[in-house]
Amino acid sequence: MAADRESKLQLVQAHIRDFVDFPKKGVIFRDICPLLKDPASLTAAIDLFEEHVRRNHQEVDLIVGLDARGFLFGPLLAQRLGVGFILIRKRGKLPGATASVSYDLEYGKAEAEVQEDAVAPGQKVLLIDDLLATGGTLYAACELMKQQRAEVLGCMVVIELKDLKGLDRLDPVGVFSLVRF
Amino acid sequence: MAADRESKLQLVQAHIRDFVDFPKKGVIFRDICPLLKDPASLTAAIDLFEEHVRRNHQEVDLIVGLDARGFLFGPLLAQRLGVGFILIRKRGKLPGATASVSYDLEYGKAEAEVQEDAVAPGQKVLLIDDLLATGGTLYAACELMKQQRAEVLGCMVVIELKDLKGLDRLDPVGVFSLVRF
Repeated sequence: MAADRESKLQLVQAHIRDFVDFPKKGVIFRDICPLLKDPASLTAAIDLFEEHVRRNHQEVDLIVGLDARGFLFGPLLAQRLGVGFILIRKRGKLPGATASVSYDLEYGKAEAEVQEDAVAPGQKVLLIDDLLATGGTLYAACELMKQQRAEVLGCMVVIELKDLKGLDRLDPVGVFSLVRF
Repeated sequence: MAADRESKLQLVQAHIRDFVDFPKKGVIFRDICPLLKDPASLTAAIDLFEEHVRRNHQEVDLIVGLDARGFLFGPLLAQRLGVGFILIRKRGKLPGATASVSYDLEYGKAEAEVQEDAVAPGQKVLLIDDLLATGGTLYAACELMKQQRAEVLGCMVVIELKDLKGLDRLDPVGVFSLVRF
């Protein structure tokens, strides 16, 4: 079983590639496109997420995906678990009554928004995105869920960038990552 | 089988809701959030897409999803079919060498971008998005795929808005939709 897990992790890691100086000089961009293009690797990634949830968060009610790359993994995981998927989007994209939180970007501010009826008080949620960097977006998304009186069980990402210390920020919640750089 | 298909379509349709005057006055927004939140309905939608592809496009090599709501359905369908998923994104989001096409929006222009190595010449692709309105974005995405010398087998959407005549524009390619308004 452990060997199986290891081979899946290797498959995932082998399908992430680096681009230097994107989106700007000095940044190494970790590209997940090869992972999505290779069906066996994508299956492996979802297997690993599913295994983590079944072991640690069997009580989960909903998977919450972050706009836009969280949308690539969230519905797949939710379907595996047989639970629903809800969206946290950038401001202005969701119809109806919404709740939002604003958060700081490197330059300026952004807002994360959710439909007010997306989650009921007390529902247990797991958040998913492709990547954890400074943790700003995931932190805001967790705040938004708590503001809606959801219980945040944890966060999940494909890639964690350790140098940016996003984990410190999300420490009380916990982040499960498949690959760390 | 036909009855099964009908019940799945009803399940999908029952999980799309309307919001009047969003994102602006006079527009009825068709919201797919309830579909994603209900696992059985989402399964039904993917079943219907899968059935369509297995019947009509068995030769498909890749599913192509449009930023951002195409990302919600594309990886699910690609995993069902055992094929890869590639992304068409808004300008500036993809690292490495990219190709792009620009297209007209109601106000101004937008660009659809793909990584140059996403699709090889001659590969057979199916495009997926949540909704067909005027068809501008899907048309641009098809042009981008053809520019990359991919063979476009067709387009798929959850919802087609008939009044906006997007189908006319995409007529030579063909659009498969689950629900029509």
